[in-house]
Amino acid sequence: MAKKFEIIFQPDGKRIKVEEDTTILDASKEAGIDLVSICGGKGICGKCKVIIEKGELKQQLDDTELKFISEHEIDENYRLACRVKIHDNLIIRIPEESRTGKQRLQVEGIKTKVKLDPVIKKYYIKLEKPTLIDQTSDFDRIKQALKSKFDILNLRINLNLLKNLGELIRSYNWNFTVCIWDNEEIISIEEGDTTNKIYGYATDIGTTKLAGYLLDLRNGEVLAVGSLMNPQIPFGEDVISRIGYKEPNKLQSAVIDGLNKIFEEICEKANINPQNVYELVAVGNTSMHHLFLGIKAKQIGVSPYIPVISRGISVKNEYLKIKMNEFGRIYTLPVISGYVGADTMGVLLSTEIYKKDEICMALDIGTNTEVILGNKDRILTTSCASGPAFEGAHIQFGMRASSGAIEKIKIDPKTLDPEIETIDHVKPRGICGSAIVDIPAEMLKSKIIDVKGKMNYNLDSPRLRKGEKYYEYVLVWAKNTAFNKDIVITQKDIREISLAKAAIHTGTTILLQEFGIDESDIDKLFIAGAFGTHINIENARFIGMFPEIPTSKIKTVGNAAGTGARMCLVSKEMRNIIEKISKKVEYIELGAHPDFQKVYLNSNYLPYADLSFYPETSNFLKQVGNFPDKKLHIF
Amino acid sequence: MAKKFEIIFQPDGKRIKVEEDTTILDASKEAGIDLVSICGGKGICGKCKVIIEKGELKQQLDDTELKFISEHEIDENYRLACRVKIHDNLIIRIPEESRTGKQRLQVEGIKTKVKLDPVIKKYYIKLEKPTLIDQTSDFDRIKQALKSKFDILNLRINLNLLKNLGELIRSYNWNFTVCIWDNEEIISIEEGDTTNKIYGYATDIGTTKLAGYLLDLRNGEVLAVGSLMNPQIPFGEDVISRIGYKEPNKLQSAVIDGLNKIFEEICEKANINPQNVYELVAVGNTSMHHLFLGIKAKQIGVSPYIPVISRGISVKNEYLKIKMNEFGRIYTLPVISGYVGADTMGVLLSTEIYKKDEICMALDIGTNTEVILGNKDRILTTSCASGPAFEGAHIQFGMRASSGAIEKIKIDPKTLDPEIETIDHVKPRGICGSAIVDIPAEMLKSKIIDVKGKMNYNLDSPRLRKGEKYYEYVLVWAKNTAFNKDIVITQKDIREISLAKAAIHTGTTILLQEFGIDESDIDKLFIAGAFGTHINIENARFIGMFPEIPTSKIKTVGNAAGTGARMCLVSKEMRNIIEKISKKVEYIELGAHPDFQKVYLNSNYLPYADLSFYPETSNFLKQVGNFPDKKLHIF
Repeated sequence: MAKKFEIIFQPDGKRIKVEEDTTILDASKEAGIDLVSICGGKGICGKCKVIIEKGELKQQLDDTELKFISEHEIDENYRLACRVKIHDNLIIRIPEESRTGKQRLQVEGIKTKVKLDPVIKKYYIKLEKPTLIDQTSDFDRIKQALKSKFDILNLRINLNLLKNLGELIRSYNWNFTVCIWDNEEIISIEEGDTTNKIYGYATDIGTTKLAGYLLDLRNGEVLAVGSLMNPQIPFGEDVISRIGYKEPNKLQSAVIDGLNKIFEEICEKANINPQNVYELVAVGNTSMHHLFLGIKAKQIGVSPYIPVISRGISVKNEYLKIKMNEFGRIYTLPVISGYVGADTMGVLLSTEIYKKDEICMALDIGTNTEVILGNKDRILTTSCASGPAFEGAHIQFGMRASSGAIEKIKIDPKTLDPEIETIDHVKPRGICGSAIVDIPAEMLKSKIIDVKGKMNYNLDSPRLRKGEKYYEYVLVWAKNTAFNKDIVITQKDIREISLAKAAIHTGTTILLQEFGIDESDIDKLFIAGAFGTHINIENARFIGMFPEIPTSKIKTVGNAAGTGARMCLVSKEMRNIIEKISKKVEYIELGAHPDFQKVYLNSNYLPYADLSFYPETSNFLKQVGNFPDKKLHIF
Repeated sequence: MAKKFEIIFQPDGKRIKVEEDTTILDASKEAGIDLVSICGGKGICGKCKVIIEKGELKQQLDDTELKFISEHEIDENYRLACRVKIHDNLIIRIPEESRTGKQRLQVEGIKTKVKLDPVIKKYYIKLEKPTLIDQTSDFDRIKQALKSKFDILNLRINLNLLKNLGELIRSYNWNFTVCIWDNEEIISIEEGDTTNKIYGYATDIGTTKLAGYLLDLRNGEVLAVGSLMNPQIPFGEDVISRIGYKEPNKLQSAVIDGLNKIFEEICEKANINPQNVYELVAVGNTSMHHLFLGIKAKQIGVSPYIPVISRGISVKNEYLKIKMNEFGRIYTLPVISGYVGADTMGVLLSTEIYKKDEICMALDIGTNTEVILGNKDRILTTSCASGPAFEGAHIQFGMRASSGAIEKIKIDPKTLDPEIETIDHVKPRGICGSAIVDIPAEMLKSKIIDVKGKMNYNLDSPRLRKGEKYYEYVLVWAKNTAFNKDIVITQKDIREISLAKAAIHTGTTILLQEFGIDESDIDKLFIAGAFGTHINIENARFIGMFPEIPTSKIKTVGNAAGTGARMCLVSKEMRNIIEKISKKVEYIELGAHPDFQKVYLNSNYLPYADLSFYPETSNFLKQVGNFPDKKLHIF
C-alpha cells in the first residue's frame, strides 16, 4: 500500500491525506481548493503557483517551472502545483493570484417575445370508475378521456410510471392531472388539479460557469435565476483539456451535480416543488454538450474536430437524473461542429438573425470565439481559436472577472498614468477580460505601442521599464495592489492580446469574404456573453476586434445562449426552427480555408494591415502621431 | 432479534435457518424446495402436505388442516406447510405427492407461414473518414450512409450507445454493421459485417411454465427451444395469488431470472452469442404480462378485474435486463381484459381465426380457460373460471403432468377394472389433467356415475366403496402405486371435474349465443396448450367439455400462444395485425351476462341438461342403459 501524507492548504486550513506521488494539483482538487489550472495540469499555463511553507520535496524545479516562476518567487518557495509530487507532509499556501475566486457570473439575457407553446402540457381529468360492463384498461381509460376532452391521440407512457399507474389513479379516486411531453408521452400523474403547477429549467452550460433559469411554463416568466462556477474546472479550465480528460463520466457527474445545485437553489428561491419541474433545456458548446450527455468525444480535441452528434436531442431524465420530476425530459439544442455548439444556436435563435432581412453578425467571445454572419437567406458560422487571453490566461497578471480584477483601464496620453476600476472597488489583484481589451487600445492611443504592438521603450516614464524577461508597463504600483507586487503589462502580454484579437478578426474577415460582403455591410453586430457586457466597445472597435461600424449598430445581448435555451423551453416552435435552421447553417473551418494564413498575418496588426479599412482609428492615430511612417506590408 | 431454528428438509437433506414464526411453506420457498402450493398459502388447496419427522410444533391441527388431512395421515404426523409456524428445530419430510416434480413441458406449436419482416434489421456500411472539409458528425455520417445506401430515414439512437459511438466506429475503422429497431432506433454498432448474426427470442410466460424459442431472424427458423417451471410458483401457484402478492417486484425478478435461464441455455445449445439477440417477444396471460413488465395490478384479482394497460408494448431492454443485447427491445402482444391476455392474442394470431371465412372456436384450457369464437368478420372472447381441477388441484390424487402421473384411463364396463397409462411408464403417483377428463367419461360409459355425476354405489365391485368422507372408486390399488396407498377417485373429485367442465361449457355456450349460432355451426375447433395435446378428444366431447362436432373438425395446436409470439418476432405485419384485431375483439364478461346462472346450472350435467344437443352421447348412454329415466330439468 502506498504511503499517505497529510497536506494542509493555507490560508483555508483545509487538511487532506493523500497517497505518495500525488501531484499537489490533484491533492488540491480532492481538497476542493479553488486553485487556477487553465491547462488542466499540462504545464502550459503556469497559473497553478503555490508556496511550499513546510515540508520537503524531492523534485528540483524543472524547465516548465523555471519558465513561469521568477527568481524572486523561487526564493519564496513558489512551485507549480501540477509539476510537483508529494513525498512528505506539507503545508502549502495558495497565493491570491492562483485562486479562481468567486466570479461575477452573468445570467441575464435579452428579452424576446415568444409565443407560448411549451412541449410540456398538463390536463386535468375525472374518470368514470370501471365496471364489469366497462372493463377498459386504466391506460386506455385515460387515453379515451384525453382524446374526447382534449383531442390528444397516440400517447405512450413511461414504463416505470406505468408500473404504479393502477395504484395511483385508484388512490386519487380517478381524479387527477396528467402531464404530457410533446403530445407523445405521459410523464406524470398527479392527484387532483395541478394544472397551475408546471415549470421548466433552462440552463447554459458554460466552460466557466453554469447559469440556470426556473420558468413558469404557463406564462414564460423567469421565477428565479442561479449560477455557479462549472464544477468541471478543477479537471481542466479549457474545453480541450476537458474533452480529452481520461474519465469523462467524472466530468458528467460534476456538471450534473452543479446543475442540480443550481436547480435546488432556484426551486427554493421560487418556492417551487422540484417534482413540478418537467423539462430541462440546455445549451453549451459542443464539448460541454457532449460531456453533459456523457458522450465520449476526445476526438473533438484533435483535427478534424468531429462531434459525435449534432442534431437536437431529447432524452428521458432517467438517463441524467436531474433532481426534477424523475420521468421528465432533457432537451439539448443542436450543435453545428466541434467548435460551434448548442450555445451558438441559442445565440442564433435569440438574436433572430435567421429571420432578419439585414445582414447581422454575432460574436460570442471566449477561448473559442464563435461568429455568426448572415440573415434570413443564408447563415455562416465559424469558431476562432482566440485563446484564453481575454479570460486572463497567458497574461502575466490576467485573471477571471472576480473581486479585485481590474475591469477598466484608461491611460492619460500625457502622463502615461492609468485610471483603473476594479470589480467590487477593492485593491487590484489582476486584470480581467474587459480591461484586457483596453490595454492595446489605450496603449495605442497613448503611443506606448505602435500598430505592430511593439512597445516604445524610449518614452519617458518610470512605468516603462525592462522587466525580468520582457519590457513592461507598470499598471499598478505594488503599494496599491492586494499583494504588494507591481501589476505590469509586458510586451509578451500585448503580443498575446494581439494574437487573440487577430484570431477573431480572421474569423470575421473570412466569413465576410465567404458571404461576399465588407465589414461596412454589417447592419447589426451582436456581442453575446458576460464579456461583451463589460467591454469598452469603442476600444474593441479601435483595435480591430470589432469591425469599424457605427457603435449604434453594436448591441450587447448578455447571455444570448441562455436566452435561446429559455425560448426553446417555452416554445416547441422555437425548437423546430432551430432544428431546421441548424441544418442550413454553413460552417467554415478557418484552418482549412485557403486565405486563412494571409488574413491572420494581416490581422496581427492593430487594427489591421490595410489601415484603409479602419479610417476612424487611422485618423485618430494620425492626430496623436502614432500612424505608421511607411505603408504596412499587406500579405 | 427473533430466534432462529434449523430446518432440514428430507429427502433432499436441504438445511436452512429461519426465524421463529416463519411458516413451513415460507421456509420451503427459501430453501428452494419444490413443494406444491396451488393456492399460494391461503389454506384452500390442501396440497402442501408435509410430514414432521422430528421437533415440536406449538399449534394443534386447525380446521383447515382437518379438512384435508385424513386420520391415517394424522397418525403419520402429516401437516399443511402453509398453516404451521416454526418454533423448534425440525426435520420435515416432503412426501412424493406434495412435490411439483419435473414437469412435462410443451413448447412445440403449429407451423405457420409468415412473411419474414422482422422489426430488427441489420445494415453493413463503410464510411469515408471525416476531414476538415467534411466535418459531419459521427451520427449524421452514419445516417447519411443509411439514407443513401438503404433509404432509411429519421433514425434515433439510444443515449447509452451514443456515449461510445465515437470511440466504437473509430476502433472499427469506419467499417461496421448497424442494427436498427423498427426503422427507428439504432440499437447496436458492431465491427465489420455481422449481418448474418441476427437472432430473436420468443417466449410464452405461462402461469406454470415458461417456454422459450431462439429464432434466426433471417429465415424464421427455430434454432433452439427451452422451458422451465415458472420460478414464481413458490410465491403462489395460481394467477390470483400471484397478482395479489405483496411484493410484485420479487415476482418480476423471478420471471426475468427464469427467462434468462432459458435464454442462456438455448443460446448455448444453438452456439449463439447472446449479444446478437436483439429482441424478445413475449406472450402470457394478463397477470403474467403485468408481472413480467413490473406493472402492479392487484386489482386484476378483484371485480371488475381491470388491467392497467391492454395495448402492445415495446420497451427498451434497459428496463428489464434480459441477458441479450443491452440496447435490445422487448415487445409484448396486446391483452384484451384481466383474464383474456396476450397469450390468447397469440392463439388468435396463430390459428388465423381473424382471417377465416368459417366459424372457428379456440379453447386454451387451464385454471382459466380462454375461449375465442368468430371469423374474419367478428371475434368474441371470454374467460371461464374453470378452476385448477384439470391441473390436478382440488382432486384428491390430482397432480401436474410429471413423471408417474396417470395420463390415460380406460374402464372396462364389465369388470369396472381400469387400464391406465402413466408418464414415463413408472408406478403411478397421481392423476394429471388428460386422465382427469377421462374420469367422468369412462365412469359414465361404465355406469359408475350417472349424467348428474352421482356415483352408483350399488354396483358390485371392490373398487367402489365408502371412503373416509366420500364414496370413492379405487383406480389403483396401493401395492401398484409409488407410495403404497390406494389411488382413488372420490364423489367430490367428480363434482370438481363437473364444475370445471361446466365453467368451460358455460363460456362456449354464451359466446355461441352472443354470436347467434349453435355448436353445430362451428367449422373448426382449435385446442391450444399442452393439455389439449394429451387429452382424449372423444372423451372430452363425450362429457360436453367440447361441442359434439365431428372430431375431424377438432384440431390440437400445441403451444399456439408461443407460436403467436414467434410470428410477431419475425414479422412486423403480424404485430400490426394483432394490434388492430385486438381493438376489434369483443370481450364477454360471463359473470355479468344475464344468462350466466341458467347456462351454468344446465352445464353441470354430463354432457348437458338438454341432451338433445348431444345426440351421439345420448345414443351411447341409451345403448349402455345409462340414459336418464326422466327428462332432466332445464333451467
